[in-house]
Amino acid sequence: MNNRRSFIKKAAMGGLMAISIPEILSGAMVSEGKKKNISLSKDFTILFQGDSITDAGRNKEDNTYNNANALGKGYPVFAGAALLEKYASLNLKVYNKGISGNKVFQLADRWDKDCLEIKPDILSILIGVNDLWHKMDGHYNEGTIEKYRKDYIALLERTKKALPNVKLIIGEPYAIKGLKAVKDNWYPEFYEYQKAAREIADRFGAIFIPYQKIYDEALKQAPGLYWTPDGVHPSLAGAQLMAQAWVKSVK
Amino acid sequence: MNNRRSFIKKAAMGGLMAISIPEILSGAMVSEGKKKNISLSKDFTILFQGDSITDAGRNKEDNTYNNANALGKGYPVFAGAALLEKYASLNLKVYNKGISGNKVFQLADRWDKDCLEIKPDILSILIGVNDLWHKMDGHYNEGTIEKYRKDYIALLERTKKALPNVKLIIGEPYAIKGLKAVKDNWYPEFYEYQKAAREIADRFGAIFIPYQKIYDEALKQAPGLYWTPDGVHPSLAGAQLMAQAWVKSVK
Repeated sequence: MNNRRSFIKKAAMGGLMAISIPEILSGAMVSEGKKKNISLSKDFTILFQGDSITDAGRNKEDNTYNNANALGKGYPVFAGAALLEKYASLNLKVYNKGISGNKVFQLADRWDKDCLEIKPDILSILIGVNDLWHKMDGHYNEGTIEKYRKDYIALLERTKKALPNVKLIIGEPYAIKGLKAVKDNWYPEFYEYQKAAREIADRFGAIFIPYQKIYDEALKQAPGLYWTPDGVHPSLAGAQLMAQAWVKSVK
Repeated sequence: MNNRRSFIKKAAMGGLMAISIPEILSGAMVSEGKKKNISLSKDFTILFQGDSITDAGRNKEDNTYNNANALGKGYPVFAGAALLEKYASLNLKVYNKGISGNKVFQLADRWDKDCLEIKPDILSILIGVNDLWHKMDGHYNEGTIEKYRKDYIALLERTKKALPNVKLIIGEPYAIKGLKAVKDNWYPEFYEYQKAAREIADRFGAIFIPYQKIYDEALKQAPGLYWTPDGVHPSLAGAQLMAQAWVKSVK
């Protein structure tokens, strides 16, 4: 029996209390069947990039690293804290430059300053929900899946050119249906954005974090509102869930 | 060979990289040789109380629970996030009511509102460094080890009377010598505060978290400044170190 089936079988047999969140994460990550993690080295710089899920209320005047003000209140601060504790002897530097509302082209607009100049050894990107959301609510009429894909590929080609050794971690855009931000008209188009992110991760040899699957598994433990009040922005529990998954992508 | 000696032996043999932080925590906690943890139950309310180490910049206008604004940027938010993720099906409520600068008598002044009315099932207290620090810097002339002990015992007797079933977690006051807030004249008196906290934990059947020992072990991995810039207030790594130790005190 493969790990995934074993995980599901245990889930079915054991009831809710028997499935720990680490098992949720392992089940979801293992089923990807790809390379599992990136090896950390001394003095590595890690950069989190993305939209409001990554920004999470960080103080944008604070350009320091390894600092709760600069890292915000979302998955980057929880992943950062976990990395800094677990790998204390490595002297890691953890930055967050996510900005609320960003779509891929807006990352590109600020990429020199907010990525290339920081020279990350590991670059983590989670982007895509606004590329569809803002189109659907009428604030981004030029938004299409083709533009998302094309802009994302161009951004990563530019990144690889400037930083040939950078290791990439790409997060799957996710949403929890039935919660207030997530409208029926997002589907099935949103699946195309998720598929594109996965294909782009593949194309660039990136670690792919299947956040949608991780949230879907977490829903077996607690309702959607527990993990993200509006279906997109994580609660404290949701931020930690994502951070734990992220931390499993490095070693 | 007992766990503690095994831990030390491994530390000596393995060099820095071989000792993971979980081992640091286990080594420090196991050596206490007391009951190891508190069993969580559904709908438990957990309250963090203390001084600036606990406060950690929380928004004091925000009286909600399970919320990063209300929990601050210190060990309570990292412990809270870990608990909410790990025990998602338990529907826990996590509050932080630490206030910067507090000494034991100042906890007592606000105890009805900031503890008893919240009716915690688990009450975590970390208090004591200001009881000595503020005395030493001339802002708290009435501060003595006898007053600390007497005030702390009175606070816990009052708590147990109002909440007979509350489970207690008491943190050891800690400081890292040689960093800017920690003056030579704190010693040996500071050891008396640490001893008193441990004895009070014993007297009330509380879980005792040996933060001093935990930091001392962590210093083998990275220098003091890495864990707490001034010797008292934790960095992100220090906050996570404390949170991980705290989370090990429940199951």
